[in-house]
Amino acid sequence: MKENEVLCRSRAEHHTLTEAELETIGLRNEAPSTSLSTKIQKIRCSGSTAKSLLFKFFPILKWLPRYPVKDWLLGDIISGFSVGIMHLPQGLAYALLAGLPPVIGLYSAFYPVLLYFFFGTSRHISVGPFAIISVMIGSVTDSLEPSGKYMEAVNGTNVTIVNETLRDAARVELVGALAFLVGIFQIALGLLQFGFVATYLSEPLVRGYTTAASIQVLISQLKYVFGVTVKEYAGPLSIIYTFLEVCSKLPNTNVGTLVTSLVAMVSILLVKLLNDKIGKKLPIPIPIELLTIIISTVISYFAKLNENFGISIVGEIPSGMRPPQAPKVHYFEKVVGNAFAIAMVSYVIAISLGKIFALKHGYKVDSNQELIALGLSNFVGSFFQCYSISCSMSRSLVQESTGGNSQVAALVSCLILLVTILKIGALFEQLPKAILASIIIVNLKGMFKQFRDIRMLWRSNVTDLLIWVVTFIATIVLNLDMGLGVAVAFSLLTVIFRTQMPHYSILGQVSTTDVYRDVAEYQKAEEIPGVKIFRSSATIYFANADLYAEALKKKCGFDVDRLVEKKKKALKKKQKKDKKEAKKAKIKTVCDSGSNNLAFVNIDMEARPQEQGNDTAATAANGSVTDLAPQTQSQPQPSGKPTLHSLGLKKPPLHSLILDLTPVNFVDTVCIKTFKNIFKDFQEIEVDVFLVGCHASVITQLERGNFFSQTITKQHLFPSVHDAVTYVTRNRGESLPQTVTDNNATKM
Amino acid sequence: MKENEVLCRSRAEHHTLTEAELETIGLRNEAPSTSLSTKIQKIRCSGSTAKSLLFKFFPILKWLPRYPVKDWLLGDIISGFSVGIMHLPQGLAYALLAGLPPVIGLYSAFYPVLLYFFFGTSRHISVGPFAIISVMIGSVTDSLEPSGKYMEAVNGTNVTIVNETLRDAARVELVGALAFLVGIFQIALGLLQFGFVATYLSEPLVRGYTTAASIQVLISQLKYVFGVTVKEYAGPLSIIYTFLEVCSKLPNTNVGTLVTSLVAMVSILLVKLLNDKIGKKLPIPIPIELLTIIISTVISYFAKLNENFGISIVGEIPSGMRPPQAPKVHYFEKVVGNAFAIAMVSYVIAISLGKIFALKHGYKVDSNQELIALGLSNFVGSFFQCYSISCSMSRSLVQESTGGNSQVAALVSCLILLVTILKIGALFEQLPKAILASIIIVNLKGMFKQFRDIRMLWRSNVTDLLIWVVTFIATIVLNLDMGLGVAVAFSLLTVIFRTQMPHYSILGQVSTTDVYRDVAEYQKAEEIPGVKIFRSSATIYFANADLYAEALKKKCGFDVDRLVEKKKKALKKKQKKDKKEAKKAKIKTVCDSGSNNLAFVNIDMEARPQEQGNDTAATAANGSVTDLAPQTQSQPQPSGKPTLHSLGLKKPPLHSLILDLTPVNFVDTVCIKTFKNIFKDFQEIEVDVFLVGCHASVITQLERGNFFSQTITKQHLFPSVHDAVTYVTRNRGESLPQTVTDNNATKM
Repeated sequence: MKENEVLCRSRAEHHTLTEAELETIGLRNEAPSTSLSTKIQKIRCSGSTAKSLLFKFFPILKWLPRYPVKDWLLGDIISGFSVGIMHLPQGLAYALLAGLPPVIGLYSAFYPVLLYFFFGTSRHISVGPFAIISVMIGSVTDSLEPSGKYMEAVNGTNVTIVNETLRDAARVELVGALAFLVGIFQIALGLLQFGFVATYLSEPLVRGYTTAASIQVLISQLKYVFGVTVKEYAGPLSIIYTFLEVCSKLPNTNVGTLVTSLVAMVSILLVKLLNDKIGKKLPIPIPIELLTIIISTVISYFAKLNENFGISIVGEIPSGMRPPQAPKVHYFEKVVGNAFAIAMVSYVIAISLGKIFALKHGYKVDSNQELIALGLSNFVGSFFQCYSISCSMSRSLVQESTGGNSQVAALVSCLILLVTILKIGALFEQLPKAILASIIIVNLKGMFKQFRDIRMLWRSNVTDLLIWVVTFIATIVLNLDMGLGVAVAFSLLTVIFRTQMPHYSILGQVSTTDVYRDVAEYQKAEEIPGVKIFRSSATIYFANADLYAEALKKKCGFDVDRLVEKKKKALKKKQKKDKKEAKKAKIKTVCDSGSNNLAFVNIDMEARPQEQGNDTAATAANGSVTDLAPQTQSQPQPSGKPTLHSLGLKKPPLHSLILDLTPVNFVDTVCIKTFKNIFKDFQEIEVDVFLVGCHASVITQLERGNFFSQTITKQHLFPSVHDAVTYVTRNRGESLPQTVTDNNATKM
Repeated sequence: MKENEVLCRSRAEHHTLTEAELETIGLRNEAPSTSLSTKIQKIRCSGSTAKSLLFKFFPILKWLPRYPVKDWLLGDIISGFSVGIMHLPQGLAYALLAGLPPVIGLYSAFYPVLLYFFFGTSRHISVGPFAIISVMIGSVTDSLEPSGKYMEAVNGTNVTIVNETLRDAARVELVGALAFLVGIFQIALGLLQFGFVATYLSEPLVRGYTTAASIQVLISQLKYVFGVTVKEYAGPLSIIYTFLEVCSKLPNTNVGTLVTSLVAMVSILLVKLLNDKIGKKLPIPIPIELLTIIISTVISYFAKLNENFGISIVGEIPSGMRPPQAPKVHYFEKVVGNAFAIAMVSYVIAISLGKIFALKHGYKVDSNQELIALGLSNFVGSFFQCYSISCSMSRSLVQESTGGNSQVAALVSCLILLVTILKIGALFEQLPKAILASIIIVNLKGMFKQFRDIRMLWRSNVTDLLIWVVTFIATIVLNLDMGLGVAVAFSLLTVIFRTQMPHYSILGQVSTTDVYRDVAEYQKAEEIPGVKIFRSSATIYFANADLYAEALKKKCGFDVDRLVEKKKKALKKKQKKDKKEAKKAKIKTVCDSGSNNLAFVNIDMEARPQEQGNDTAATAANGSVTDLAPQTQSQPQPSGKPTLHSLGLKKPPLHSLILDLTPVNFVDTVCIKTFKNIFKDFQEIEVDVFLVGCHASVITQLERGNFFSQTITKQHLFPSVHDAVTYVTRNRGESLPQTVTDNNATKM
């Protein structure tokens, strides 16, 4: 019974597909008909969306009322506490990285996090200062407000020193303006539902980029580790100049600083390893970074490291909040490009991390709402001396692994930061900068692991490896902003490359099935005599249309162009001869009106193809919808267009060409032109051309592009290779090949 | 009989496709096997190519010995004569356009043409000076050697005038260096077989570009038509500034110049129309441009137009050739960008025109050899004070329509130019520049017709229209070099756009055939109960992979993510409960070794999926190749992974999801990740996922990308939608839905 059912659904009946059936699948009629039911459905879908819109823009309204206090609150408090005490050292360190006074890092860990609590859709990411965004901002501050701009002569002497107060004030205004623009960009993109732009930053690109950025971060921190002073470079190659200068100044290393850094790094690293191993058994991981800065501050304070050993320290950290300030408009013009780059990178890092957690815990992040949430965090933060934020991978991992379930954890961390800013911050003025550099460097460990991608991608996808490597090199060489531009351009170009050099193949039938495969790759795939089935592995458009036509002619097995040329020459000769004969005939039978001379008919046909075209089109439109075949009507007509045979030329070794267009995604004018030329050339040498597997959208585009004419009709379309093959083998049989254009001849 | 044959080939047998058969088509075995015969073929192909290489680089060796003197020579001489006398006025005019002394235009119409005779493969194009290339060069000379640089005080007065001799000498050196670089670029690209780069300049782009260039040419000539002096602008917006300045200076129009131009334009236009009408009856078309310059020179000479009416004239035209000069290397750095743009545009115009003629006359142009030929023309020409050349559309049309059959016509035109340069040129010193401007403007007529493209493209392909318009505007606003860059970048981006927002559809079966079409578009297409067939119209890659997954889940008709989330929650609850129970059980039966407790099995399964995986893989590799189904082995196993049913959750309304991947061209890591997630999510909620219509190259890429695992096997691939549907309906029948992962459970 069941077996029968299967057979009923099988293709057996299909081969008697009537024209009416073909019509229903859009291969014969003018345009696909949209069913009424779908239209009704569409109308129903709109309406009652106001409430969902509110929930969309204020996700907190949706989740907070449903917050499972009993299950989640404890985890959130523990997690918030852990994250909060991570914010302190990281905030100070990342502010240093951005070339800003340390307190700015604390502000940036407070206001934006608060905003994200209300607008964010990810439950586990920890927004706030992040190394890569900080180093991007650092390159802006270095180039627009360099220390060199604030050199002042020390009273009465020739020695000049940097007026750090002035410089820092200017830099804070600069990064405020930058954060303002970043926020505007993100909110605008979010409202315009442009969250998808993040997809241009594909995973290999982001990983290559963040790896290169980590190198940048590392090199920018070397000066603190070795305690040397290095000029501030900006623009392309700056990281390489910085590295070279650090190397050249290694002899001037401040040994105290170096020792401090090494001790700090080793101890943080060891404790982090310990945390990974026994972390599950502790309620919160050992806050080694906090411990390190506390211990080192205490040592620094009592041993007077700064005065005795010349170890540079963090310096003044003001207590308390500052009133909001409007952003400085005059910076906008200079930083708009950087702002866009930072907006994109900040978003991409947040959304990719958010998606990873969402997938793990089975919820969803809304990419557009995330843009808006980050944008608002940056926008509002910019009024309160914050700099641009993203989310930090290390903090987010801690937030999730210590049992955080929602952004309530972030709220808890905000409380801890509030206390820090108001009361505790000022205690850390004696903290050596080398310690902060060590914290930054150790936190890069995870990033450097991304170098393993190279090996993994080499095995799995070479093009993606290329994207990774080009992004990495461009970012190292051209710096973070231009590097990103180059990387995006390159990764988009790879799409062109991948489709431009496709794999062209001739297909053959696999034993007696309806499956067709590349004859060069599968031994069991056999070509059907007289039929070539050609397929390109890529869509056909302006960049590869010519190559497609060339490959097709090459794979045909005979010189198509040569045969066309030969036929044209022979035709010219014949016409000349016919003309002469006609002249002779005219002279002879000048009185006979209504001459039935063969040559005349020929010449007339050439002279007014347009009229014939109209006739044929009209006939086709009126009746004969049930014609199965383009040629069924036509009989071998000696009075038609001269055939290869009548011109004394050898027939080509095939009578039908089937072009498999299943991989075609869209059609442009160049593609249509190419197909028209293919049809023209092959019909000229009496080979029927069929297009199979066109998707509905492709057919619509072909129609709009005026592809179909009297010589290329919808009769040349088939849903699959097998349908076309069946049609060809059934209708052609052993009879002589004739071109579709012969049709016209019968109408004469 | 025949009907029987057709049925034999039909799909009827296919549904009993054995695993062995599936193996032959690459859906079950490890890698497709390349047949021996193709390997042998490849080896045979190489060899005996030295002769064909010689013919390739010196096409003249091939065609000249076979030159049909009797048939072609007369036509070539007439055509060469017509083209030669067109070269004279055009050469002078285009040199003016490029801001060069007129004789340079004559040189450029001589040396490069001679070179192309030897190396070119097109039989009908007329290489030499061309308006668009000339205006591109004009913008370079204006910006690098502006007249302002050569101002000199007239003896003893305050008035300064331009020292034209010095300026022109510098400009000739500049364009020589430019032509040298253009030649180098073209030869290099040709030798590297990079002829395909021209495909990046798609037809809509080239037409939009040339239209904008014509506007540039027109505006640059207005000053000569009105006889006003205008500053030389360079860089973006220069053409708009020029236009505004011409407009503001209209009150200063030199009436004599304006009248001269108008008379010349009207008469040239009228005679050209006449030529079009009765041209066929004349041996050569009326050389109206030549006549105009002769008549106007005579009038100018006798009426002393320059002295009496202030009409500016061409000025000195030296007679004779000049010895070759090495290019000035110091210009290279400044013009390298322009040289590349000119090299590309020059090549694209020549090759597109060449292909049109080749198609018409049934021969072939070799795109790489054309690059080499043009490159050699420019390269050698650069030593003889030529500027960069391309081919002129108007001259080429004349060459073809007056009966030219080969580049012998070009040789004839060279002879005429040689005579002109040596003897006649100097006679044209009194020629008004306004006449040359008129000739240029009238020759633009054909270009302006390209505005019709807008209407045509609006109807046929909106994306291509967008390319046209963006190219046009960018070229007008940003000038010819930067405009080209923007246009190419934009046209490549359209490929991204076109694939990024594809049409997603759910397919249904058309009556009882094996054809599947979009159910929203075709009423007769009906969904199969419990089976969703999903298709995107575009290839799936980093820029749209996320959107694909989203669209899929949206179209499924139920909230996939919600169900996955629910299941995860229920599973957690159950595990907790089970753990508690297990603890209790353990306490109770602590002595009973070999416990068969259900809950334990469950937890164990979760704990070591890796080991299981290895087992399963090994079993699969060893035997059971003839398994038809992934699930045939599995029986409903209560001890397996908890099912939706056992967790008290409702089953989703479908049991199978079929993803039609026929439009997929290539696969990247992002795409693989997306598919893995789709498999994971749907298998989690007990929906089987099948991929159908993957091309061989896609399967290879999936393999390399480690797509296949214990949960995603090649058993999930089918050659077509219908195969998968038949498989699903046959194997599932009315039985309960089970996931493929159940397989593992049976091995326990």
